[in-house]
Amino acid sequence: MTDITPEVQEAIDRVRDDVAALHSELVRYGLVVWTGGNVSGRVPDADLFVIKPSGVLYDELTPANMILCTLDGAVVEGSPGSDRSPSSDTAAHAYVYRNMPDVGGVVHTHSPYAVAWAAYGEPIPCVTTAMADEFGGEIPIGPFAIIGDDSIGRGIVETLSGHRSRAVLMKNHGPFTIGKDARDAVKAAVMVEDVARSVLFSRQLGTPNPIPQPAIDSLFNRYQNVYGQDPTGSLN
Amino acid sequence: MTDITPEVQEAIDRVRDDVAALHSELVRYGLVVWTGGNVSGRVPDADLFVIKPSGVLYDELTPANMILCTLDGAVVEGSPGSDRSPSSDTAAHAYVYRNMPDVGGVVHTHSPYAVAWAAYGEPIPCVTTAMADEFGGEIPIGPFAIIGDDSIGRGIVETLSGHRSRAVLMKNHGPFTIGKDARDAVKAAVMVEDVARSVLFSRQLGTPNPIPQPAIDSLFNRYQNVYGQDPTGSLN
Amino acid sequence: MTDITPEVQEAIDRVRDDVAALHSELVRYGLVVWTGGNVSGRVPDADLFVIKPSGVLYDELTPANMILCTLDGAVVEGSPGSDRSPSSDTAAHAYVYRNMPDVGGVVHTHSPYAVAWAAYGEPIPCVTTAMADEFGGEIPIGPFAIIGDDSIGRGIVETLSGHRSRAVLMKNHGPFTIGKDARDAVKAAVMVEDVARSVLFSRQLGTPNPIPQPAIDSLFNRYQNVYGQDPTGSLN
Amino acid sequence: MTDITPEVQEAIDRVRDDVAALHSELVRYGLVVWTGGNVSGRVPDADLFVIKPSGVLYDELTPANMILCTLDGAVVEGSPGSDRSPSSDTAAHAYVYRNMPDVGGVVHTHSPYAVAWAAYGEPIPCVTTAMADEFGGEIPIGPFAIIGDDSIGRGIVETLSGHRSRAVLMKNHGPFTIGKDARDAVKAAVMVEDVARSVLFSRQLGTPNPIPQPAIDSLFNRYQNVYGQDPTGSLN
Repeated sequence: MTDITPEVQEAIDRVRDDVAALHSELVRYGLVVWTGGNVSGRVPDADLFVIKPSGVLYDELTPANMILCTLDGAVVEGSPGSDRSPSSDTAAHAYVYRNMPDVGGVVHTHSPYAVAWAAYGEPIPCVTTAMADEFGGEIPIGPFAIIGDDSIGRGIVETLSGHRSRAVLMKNHGPFTIGKDARDAVKAAVMVEDVARSVLFSRQLGTPNPIPQPAIDSLFNRYQNVYGQDPTGSLN
Repeated sequence: MTDITPEVQEAIDRVRDDVAALHSELVRYGLVVWTGGNVSGRVPDADLFVIKPSGVLYDELTPANMILCTLDGAVVEGSPGSDRSPSSDTAAHAYVYRNMPDVGGVVHTHSPYAVAWAAYGEPIPCVTTAMADEFGGEIPIGPFAIIGDDSIGRGIVETLSGHRSRAVLMKNHGPFTIGKDARDAVKAAVMVEDVARSVLFSRQLGTPNPIPQPAIDSLFNRYQNVYGQDPTGSLN
Repeated sequence: MTDITPEVQEAIDRVRDDVAALHSELVRYGLVVWTGGNVSGRVPDADLFVIKPSGVLYDELTPANMILCTLDGAVVEGSPGSDRSPSSDTAAHAYVYRNMPDVGGVVHTHSPYAVAWAAYGEPIPCVTTAMADEFGGEIPIGPFAIIGDDSIGRGIVETLSGHRSRAVLMKNHGPFTIGKDARDAVKAAVMVEDVARSVLFSRQLGTPNPIPQPAIDSLFNRYQNVYGQDPTGSLN
Repeated sequence: MTDITPEVQEAIDRVRDDVAALHSELVRYGLVVWTGGNVSGRVPDADLFVIKPSGVLYDELTPANMILCTLDGAVVEGSPGSDRSPSSDTAAHAYVYRNMPDVGGVVHTHSPYAVAWAAYGEPIPCVTTAMADEFGGEIPIGPFAIIGDDSIGRGIVETLSGHRSRAVLMKNHGPFTIGKDARDAVKAAVMVEDVARSVLFSRQLGTPNPIPQPAIDSLFNRYQNVYGQDPTGSLN
């Protein structure tokens, strides 16, 4: 178990702040309703992550009621917020952190356009340069899995391991996204809904034009290396 | 008739506060325009409920202008707000309270995606895990019924009695939802629009993938028992 | 020409306030972008109406920059705001006021779902009880008419005279609505977009269920007479 | 190279203010998510333009962090904001300014309905009078072009030179718009999304009604000359 040194405590506090604040991006971009959706963030250099409590309204989320968990998904007893239950998707987040050591953030929503593709059960084809930039190709469909054991987490990890996409659409369920940190995973959640929407609209006109694979490769490689102020890029 | 003891008065005041405040959730989630839509809440341990006035803008709703009614839908004379008419759907709410004693809240909206299904006249099929969680299966269609007598109330009660769903789409009209209290019925109204939207989007891609009945049953039973901070779950 | 007595001046000021404020409802309900859309209101007991200036952003509209016009659409010289041009749709509004004496308000928008029906050129069928309540049947299509003479105004008047609907979809253009006053016309603009949206969504599922004519008649007659706090109902 | 006289400096400051402020219109009208989208404005009487920094959130944009560039797309060293990278689309903006001397503003977004048409690869047909007013006909599709050289800029210039439309949908990418200044280009970005949306909705009903070419010509000519408070009209 992780020893909570002053350095680790500082890291926990920073992740609590980030995770609590990032939930407002889910609201801003219309990805969630009521208490649905959740963001988590790994505590750097510790076997811990921070996640949203279950069934609490977005207006009431604060750093102090975020919940600190170990990598097997157990609440750290006595820590702030530990009187509440963590998100009902905690086991899936924990499974991802245990099995994908480079992942620093996980997000789950029921954003409506991504859910539409998840219910239809077909990957979102890569027909926009923004998709090529951000996801490097199609958004894959993960298996149908029921909450209650590790099958959701396993489906996420199996689908995304070695895949360029930071987003998976779990069949009949919705998107899970990963990132180098919580912010990066939230960005992926915002972008997956954006492309799910545009491509669905495009399908209403007819069959969208495919982008040739070499162009997709070129866009993805460039974007991961040079975009933005941060040269380290995102996870993938 | 109910005797207005200090305890009942306190309960009335609490329900007035809740019902007035909960209308803002209808606005927040885009379920209503202009003065359409209404929330009501039963006063616990009394044959009374509180409902929105008719034809008043959402910005002008306050606890004091909510209207107190008896279970036959008559305004309690002399109570605050009683100089106004109650919602034109009051008779339907009253019918539900008289005939479904466990119902503590009723909501009606013309939320656009749910109305689309109501006008088409087909139940929303259960193709997302969120629907299975929240409604335990499809959202049923109620009969076509005209305002002015008990036919809307009767249609709601006949459709929802013994049904897992807390939402019914009255044909060519729109959704009515019930709950253990007003908040729970509002949540159902938010969720029914959310699933109506996602499933309609999914139908634009093709035929959504059905979820096997045992998986629906398992999701519904789990969600009703363990989700959220409140172990008592919602009405159904 | 109207003599501007103190009573008329007071009425003008009231209509300026109303018309300026009501434009924010067009923004709130997503009916307009940029400077598009306009509301006007007749000055009671005077041959005058007040309308939005042309090409001014919604944030910059105030009672003082609304423009006072005579019923032939000319700006009243020297009145506040008269240094600006009135809405480019002023001639159409003026034509309606001249030819429909019971109309006290006119609204024009390019709200997206109503425009979709206008471009398709087919009336919105009456398949929801809210449409029956508010419009008494289908929303009619007006003729294709070009700005610059009285053809838009004439198209509106010819389509709506003797029609239950307070809204007309001018072909390839968009909705014009009328009302007993500016507020009532704004309500009709909000409602026509709402029904345009729901019925378009319903058409994506298949053919919506028609409502029998006697039920439409009954709903319309009831709603015009008893709904809301104001027993006088709206124009039609 | 431009000599930064006090007059030029004043012009730069004005354009910084405008460009920073105009980005909020992209947010207001739902044209952008996260850090996507960018506005630039030419500095009058100077071979310079001002553009958004790359990868910075909309809430954090200020006049001081806008980036000043020469017409070959290089950052002016030592100027405020020059410690950051300019938008990754800077080369395309620069190419337009070099090759279209009347253009004073350029905007790029991934607004969802315009992207849908871009991915489908078909021009938006002119089926509403608002399109005829604003764009004088259909919105054209530009070539598929990859970021990294001048091919995007060249595609924009080749498509829009001599075209009435101030908007081009770059294939599988999204809209670029031009204007006499940054505000005019932003207006075109708002309007192209508005028409992309209405026409896509209309296509869901069936085939929209075409507008005869003479009527399109008449509407376009009138609108460019007389609409709004500013008789000079917009660029085209």
